[in-house]
Amino acid sequence: MKQIFLLVALAAVAGVVAVTVYTSRVTAQQATPVFVTQIPTGYRDWRFISVAHEEGSLHSIGAVLGNDVAIKAYREGTLPFPDGTIIAALHYQHVPSEENNRIFGRQQSFVPGQPTNIQFMVKDSTKYAATGGWGFGHFADGKPGAEAAMKTCFPCHAREKARDLVFTRYAP
Amino acid sequence: MKQIFLLVALAAVAGVVAVTVYTSRVTAQQATPVFVTQIPTGYRDWRFISVAHEEGSLHSIGAVLGNDVAIKAYREGTLPFPDGTIIAALHYQHVPSEENNRIFGRQQSFVPGQPTNIQFMVKDSTKYAATGGWGFGHFADGKPGAEAAMKTCFPCHAREKARDLVFTRYAP
Repeated sequence: MKQIFLLVALAAVAGVVAVTVYTSRVTAQQATPVFVTQIPTGYRDWRFISVAHEEGSLHSIGAVLGNDVAIKAYREGTLPFPDGTIIAALHYQHVPSEENNRIFGRQQSFVPGQPTNIQFMVKDSTKYAATGGWGFGHFADGKPGAEAAMKTCFPCHAREKARDLVFTRYAP
Repeated sequence: MKQIFLLVALAAVAGVVAVTVYTSRVTAQQATPVFVTQIPTGYRDWRFISVAHEEGSLHSIGAVLGNDVAIKAYREGTLPFPDGTIIAALHYQHVPSEENNRIFGRQQSFVPGQPTNIQFMVKDSTKYAATGGWGFGHFADGKPGAEAAMKTCFPCHAREKARDLVFTRYAP
């Protein structure tokens, strides 16, 4: 009898500990955003989603590429994007092409200059629960962005709720 | 003896005919440009080479994609591009994104609008001998460009001899 009581008591303690650990982990996850700190492999071979040109303070031209999960979801109109989706934005300086303009005989052509950064959105609804299921990544010269800057990604993307926080539409 | 003479004479005539047919075919090919009249299959799945923004009278933004032969040649710096190379340029109207600008709170974002045309350069040094080994293609709404317009492709691209008639550089 005494042994059974001890066993039940131990099990109860273990249960409380487990629940506490789980709860605090979930709470921590929801409270503290987790960012993408490693560049996803193979992104330069991914397929084309769209292009983008940003003025304002950016003066950038970029390409948005997607892994297979992303491309399938875009083409089928799947929303929200499924876990495993990765969207990459390759940004470059938006510069005039003097060599092209010489050939065209007029100021016409703008092309990618130096790469400025590569940004990623990685969908994992568990890992990135605190930021709408998306992990945000920003890499300049291969190095991840500072935490203060990274915290600005989600609040802005969150304004695009209707398209699961993704600004870029698929170009036909 | 008479039979042998006849055989040699026949062979000679056949040879002359063959050479004449061959020569006139080559001459015709060199004189008359041949254009790409069918959209290469699967181009929308090809890999990313670069982006381009054209002002002047064009106001277009586009993506340049390449088939596997093209991507390999670009990455390895192979010039001239080998037969089998296909480069695709997907052009769209360059339009402001009102939905993005609303979110950013400023006029910043330009995105692809309606598709305007898709252009191809297909390398086949025999078939397209008259135009530097490149077949040029232009499709708007799926229809190939008119011959008069197509004849303007080669003379302009020919000014970029150092890079085998290809304007677009590979974006890292």
